[in-house]
Amino acid sequence: MAKYEVLAHQLKEQIERGVWVENEKLPSLRKQAAQTGFSLMTVLHAYQMLESQGIVSSQERSGFLVTAKASNASKERVQATEAVSINDFVYEVLQASRDPHMFSLGFAYPDPSLYPRQHLNKSIAAAAQQISLTSAMDNLPPGNLDLRKIIAKRYAAKGVNISPDEIIITAGALEALNLSLQACTTPGDWVVVESPVFYGTLQALQRLGLKAITVTVSPNTGLDVAALERAFKNHNVKACWLMSNFQNPVGYSLSDGQKQQVAALLDKYNVALIEDDVYAELYADKRPPLPIKHFMKEGDSMLCSSFSKSLVAGYRIGWVAAGKRALEIQKQQLMSTLATSAPIQLALVDYLSTKNYESHLKQLRKKLIARKKTITALLTDLLSDVATIHTHSGGYFLWVECRGHVDAMAIYKEALRLHITIAPGKLFSLTNEFNHCFRLNASFALNEAKRNQLLKLSLFIKSLS
Amino acid sequence: MAKYEVLAHQLKEQIERGVWVENEKLPSLRKQAAQTGFSLMTVLHAYQMLESQGIVSSQERSGFLVTAKASNASKERVQATEAVSINDFVYEVLQASRDPHMFSLGFAYPDPSLYPRQHLNKSIAAAAQQISLTSAMDNLPPGNLDLRKIIAKRYAAKGVNISPDEIIITAGALEALNLSLQACTTPGDWVVVESPVFYGTLQALQRLGLKAITVTVSPNTGLDVAALERAFKNHNVKACWLMSNFQNPVGYSLSDGQKQQVAALLDKYNVALIEDDVYAELYADKRPPLPIKHFMKEGDSMLCSSFSKSLVAGYRIGWVAAGKRALEIQKQQLMSTLATSAPIQLALVDYLSTKNYESHLKQLRKKLIARKKTITALLTDLLSDVATIHTHSGGYFLWVECRGHVDAMAIYKEALRLHITIAPGKLFSLTNEFNHCFRLNASFALNEAKRNQLLKLSLFIKSLS
Repeated sequence: MAKYEVLAHQLKEQIERGVWVENEKLPSLRKQAAQTGFSLMTVLHAYQMLESQGIVSSQERSGFLVTAKASNASKERVQATEAVSINDFVYEVLQASRDPHMFSLGFAYPDPSLYPRQHLNKSIAAAAQQISLTSAMDNLPPGNLDLRKIIAKRYAAKGVNISPDEIIITAGALEALNLSLQACTTPGDWVVVESPVFYGTLQALQRLGLKAITVTVSPNTGLDVAALERAFKNHNVKACWLMSNFQNPVGYSLSDGQKQQVAALLDKYNVALIEDDVYAELYADKRPPLPIKHFMKEGDSMLCSSFSKSLVAGYRIGWVAAGKRALEIQKQQLMSTLATSAPIQLALVDYLSTKNYESHLKQLRKKLIARKKTITALLTDLLSDVATIHTHSGGYFLWVECRGHVDAMAIYKEALRLHITIAPGKLFSLTNEFNHCFRLNASFALNEAKRNQLLKLSLFIKSLS
Repeated sequence: MAKYEVLAHQLKEQIERGVWVENEKLPSLRKQAAQTGFSLMTVLHAYQMLESQGIVSSQERSGFLVTAKASNASKERVQATEAVSINDFVYEVLQASRDPHMFSLGFAYPDPSLYPRQHLNKSIAAAAQQISLTSAMDNLPPGNLDLRKIIAKRYAAKGVNISPDEIIITAGALEALNLSLQACTTPGDWVVVESPVFYGTLQALQRLGLKAITVTVSPNTGLDVAALERAFKNHNVKACWLMSNFQNPVGYSLSDGQKQQVAALLDKYNVALIEDDVYAELYADKRPPLPIKHFMKEGDSMLCSSFSKSLVAGYRIGWVAAGKRALEIQKQQLMSTLATSAPIQLALVDYLSTKNYESHLKQLRKKLIARKKTITALLTDLLSDVATIHTHSGGYFLWVECRGHVDAMAIYKEALRLHITIAPGKLFSLTNEFNHCFRLNASFALNEAKRNQLLKLSLFIKSLS
């Protein structure tokens, strides 16, 4: 065999073994030459030979991609996507939610009337009295020490060991997640994300030039752990972004057993974990759920959360428990937003140390359970012929899966006409796979008017089937 | 001529005309093939021919780079740098400034005792009373409308036309600058930055994978406008990041004439302007300085500023007047930090509409002028034999340029021992060009102890010469 035939043969075998899967790009000519020691000419000949056999196809901008014909990995539930495109639609849905007359079932936050507004306002006023000349510096990365100590103690109470020193205070969980992803990847890296997935995840990947491998999260059985392992085996995965508790949008929480399995895989394949645990406090069972981080042995893990879902939305204070990445993340924050607001950090310290956060949380959990139960019952009555309403213990999201060829975008548009927002499935995926689904926020109390709105919307949904 | 010879000849001419300059990478094989219509083989042959003539050199990871021999552009004052590497040193200097016993001459903010603390705290307390159920949504991008109106009116008072609709409230000017840069570039683009330059600029470029072309800012004559035009001519420059007023670190402000020249070039070459105008309020002349944006005719310009230098440091509230990029920047903010804190935006609205910001600013300007004068006089006495102390009307930075082979890092280390921080020149450049310079914050009042510290430091500096 000529040299280029040897290389072509090697590559063919690699593709058959799933090293390179459908739509994945082979290494560039230059990189392949450097790795294998063949000349650029030889590599180009080999690639052109594979192309003539229909095993790869040459794309003007993206290089040589493995074709569907060649790949045997396409049967797997892992989807590899080169380019993650931003969904302008997220902006539209959020702007629609600003209308105060809107019944915001598409909203990602709990009903704002559930927040302890009086106590929080007192804490802001109290913080205003405490601000000193030097406290302007206390908010610099990693953020207010008292606040980090309180957060660490709250983890300790759940049996999760986190040091105040590894915590960085951020502008909400979203900044924490973005900084974490940036810390453990470089552009072009593979990152495992869920499907369906929180849209912020897809946007973060797009912004950082990362490649997404999606692993299915079923509303009935949760994350497909076998598919996760295949992804780790077939790709050089650098990071994995997961919500193990009250997953957004389907609402599923992994069992401790599933978390252990995932943690073991992360350790085994040396993949960094970015854990989005913003709903952690909103459990309905007796015991608080644990993060995957808790089950990891070695652990390059970044646990992100915030007060936005459990205490107050508009403060924009979150954090990441970043382990060995703590210093790196502080430096990145220093150059992106510098720090979060000093008075707001002080106000939270005041609230958490002088007001009764636990008793607020108990009340909040109780109300969320009751409200979700009411809305679920109503929707089951109205829609059970045409849709499955997935609901889980804890959190406040319902995931509605319509049967037949229903397009949730049509439902979204009719809902807007009825002054309701919903979050259509298309927000949570790069494919059309969830176009028949939508997410509902079940944290709101129903009154007669709202019942009527839901009734009208349900009739419309039925009319589509 | 064979096809590859034709292409090689074309490329050689382009290099001679300065289209591709020293150390710059030629387009990848694939990109060149797509652009010119030649086959990959032809392009590879052409590149290898140029390599054999010593015009380009092949680098394993970075492709074909133009050699020094080939380039005639290296004599210009424009420096092209492929990779901008982050300076961990920024983090070290900032952390050192947290020590309350430190005389923080390396600090980037004015003396915190100059902020109207009592009034601000009252406004925070007042804001706490106003927070309603719906105000949590008012902070979403583009941010609080009242605050945007106040900012637009303040520009109007200076004769600068900016609509509240194009303003986006951000986490300080740093987030505004980062979002702006991201909005008008894609990785690999050329961006013009100043030299010496605010270190946040270099870090932003590095983070977004952009290539820096530096244009000199002299402490005596300001931005080298001729070099700016050469940069625009020789490279496909996408954006230009400038501080026209009280430039950090040298302190120079461009004249209206210089601003007009720069504006005309930006319009002519269709380059986006990212303007960092955070010191705008700290002028010492009768009239407030204008931004370059004001002089642009067509104008893809993003004017960024904040309240951090003129009112209070720890709030982290800034803005960008983004013109046609306003919507794009809102969407990007939505996915990076989501929004800035609602109570803090309300507190600023309260302060700006009920307290006397103008009278605070007048006092602040007066004190900064007096304090800078005192420190400048003292340092001139102590150091004029061995250094030039550059000072300008307005702002609060001094740029100290040592004569001879003095290394400001040695001064930095001795200063730390004396409980003083300074900002050494190495912070403001990718080269060693400013290693003999350092920036001083002249906003602090001197007492006997501080005079003594400065005296000791000056003796050390003299001992180096």
